[in-house]
Amino acid sequence: MATIRDVSKLAGVSVATVSRVLNKSGYVHKSTIEAVEKAMQTLQYKPSHIARSLAGKRTATVALIVPNILNPFFPLLARAIEDTAQENGFSVLLCNSDSSTEKERQYMEVLATKQVDGLLLASYTARPEELSAFERDSSIPVVLVDNCFPGQPIASFIARHREGARMAVRHLTAQGCRKIAHISGPPHVFAAHERRLAYEELCQDQPWYTPDLIVQSDYMISGGELAVKQLLSRHPDVDGVFAGNDLLAVGAMRVLYAMGVHVPGQIKLIGFDGVAVDYAVPGLSTVVQPVYEIGTQAMRHLLARIRGESVAPEIREFDTRLASAASTGC
Amino acid sequence: MATIRDVSKLAGVSVATVSRVLNKSGYVHKSTIEAVEKAMQTLQYKPSHIARSLAGKRTATVALIVPNILNPFFPLLARAIEDTAQENGFSVLLCNSDSSTEKERQYMEVLATKQVDGLLLASYTARPEELSAFERDSSIPVVLVDNCFPGQPIASFIARHREGARMAVRHLTAQGCRKIAHISGPPHVFAAHERRLAYEELCQDQPWYTPDLIVQSDYMISGGELAVKQLLSRHPDVDGVFAGNDLLAVGAMRVLYAMGVHVPGQIKLIGFDGVAVDYAVPGLSTVVQPVYEIGTQAMRHLLARIRGESVAPEIREFDTRLASAASTGC
Repeated sequence: MATIRDVSKLAGVSVATVSRVLNKSGYVHKSTIEAVEKAMQTLQYKPSHIARSLAGKRTATVALIVPNILNPFFPLLARAIEDTAQENGFSVLLCNSDSSTEKERQYMEVLATKQVDGLLLASYTARPEELSAFERDSSIPVVLVDNCFPGQPIASFIARHREGARMAVRHLTAQGCRKIAHISGPPHVFAAHERRLAYEELCQDQPWYTPDLIVQSDYMISGGELAVKQLLSRHPDVDGVFAGNDLLAVGAMRVLYAMGVHVPGQIKLIGFDGVAVDYAVPGLSTVVQPVYEIGTQAMRHLLARIRGESVAPEIREFDTRLASAASTGC
Repeated sequence: MATIRDVSKLAGVSVATVSRVLNKSGYVHKSTIEAVEKAMQTLQYKPSHIARSLAGKRTATVALIVPNILNPFFPLLARAIEDTAQENGFSVLLCNSDSSTEKERQYMEVLATKQVDGLLLASYTARPEELSAFERDSSIPVVLVDNCFPGQPIASFIARHREGARMAVRHLTAQGCRKIAHISGPPHVFAAHERRLAYEELCQDQPWYTPDLIVQSDYMISGGELAVKQLLSRHPDVDGVFAGNDLLAVGAMRVLYAMGVHVPGQIKLIGFDGVAVDYAVPGLSTVVQPVYEIGTQAMRHLLARIRGESVAPEIREFDTRLASAASTGC
């Protein structure tokens, strides 16, 4: 039995276009209509009424709320989600919450009015009860990305941050570092918390350890600049820095370069995320999250929910990998 | 007379939320409804029937088609557009075309079906006739961003690339460069073409000039890496490089660093765009486009069109500015 996907492939158009030809709705080039009709004849395609009514009722739109598309983690996530959406005839609304609970709530109200079919949320402030209430009241399925609430029935797609952070610290040790500091991200962000826990777990029993080897910062380049200055004034003998993300690492590297501190000669530096490393000169070691894969799987899960498939709201975890480069002497 | 905006301000909610309370549609918190109703009483607000019917008919959604959200120029543009949309109760659909004419066309078909209220397009491949036909057939106004078709009735918002590129070349000369090369972007991209023309205009009468001082590339980091290698094999005595955008400049800087060529000691380097400079170590000189301002003005123009205001489809040009840094010895 031919599917709508087979028709779209043979006609060389998207599934959404075939759906519009079937429903005689919207703007389609005449030549495209002919190509689709020819493909349907060739494949003897019989549209399913259920599929057509579903397509008719749905808006085929999902929303993605991110804190800020300017953090290079989120364009990569957005790209993965939009690619997967597009392959399935869906569109993606992009919303920037600036990590404001109020702005997030306003977006969710608007999205419910617009009858989007699903919501992908990268939020570090939303509470699980709120998300469950939103799902219940609006009937819009929610998938959480880059955060999770263990024990709560909310589908979550997230990297194994603690294991990744262990790799980062062990790599610095293996490269000969004898006094390792950590620039940590915002404590309310699950990933930042996990990364810090891994650092503490591996370092707190070392003879050189003191708690003020941890400088708490945001996830921004300017934060990394400030943090590394603070760190060097406290501990001029630090020889390894685990920055909580790549932006912090880039900020640290800029200041070290300006201060004439050689990387990796005097200080070895590693980031986390794997999203901004191509920009760094010299090359930045980092722990790479499979961001594109996380976005793709999150969107597929959401599509399954939208199609009414019975999928459990699991927490899906993804492995990270070490990418060593010049900043740790590799 | 109080407006819907006054109500939204007093109630501390978005215009879209007030609109939903007025239309008794969608998901609004009970406490929010009460706050809005109280604000309407306080201000003695009388909703205009015209405004309400307009709000009802429109989807309050616009689409933004960009080549690829992973190029850091586009997150900044998207952020500006989404901020302006959100302030006005609109949402933004994000689409990545990969500069494929076919993908762009498919998106436009889908967007017409979804009845978006407007389209912002960053396209270097769409032809003006196609855009005019789309506007006519779908009644969806189109605004072009970062491209323009002089003499065509299509609203366009774009920086003054030629003048910006002149600043870049003059800056290299002022910093003492005596043999300046150019890594140019894709020739079908209007901005890339303009930047190259400025380089040729200022350099072609110099005694050291030969046409193979121009290496044509894409707008990617890897392209910059390749191009600078090619350039140095042709002209080892080049002492200034005007890279067609910041990504090309970062690629060039990475290779120069790896080859042991000192920047700015041996080669002075300048980029264009002003979007990735925070990532570069050492600091990258560049010509900054007012990307956020371009996005904001483009979205405001589109909103005026959507509201039915009579606005001419002008070409709006924006000034750039030089930001000098370590890579040119500043």
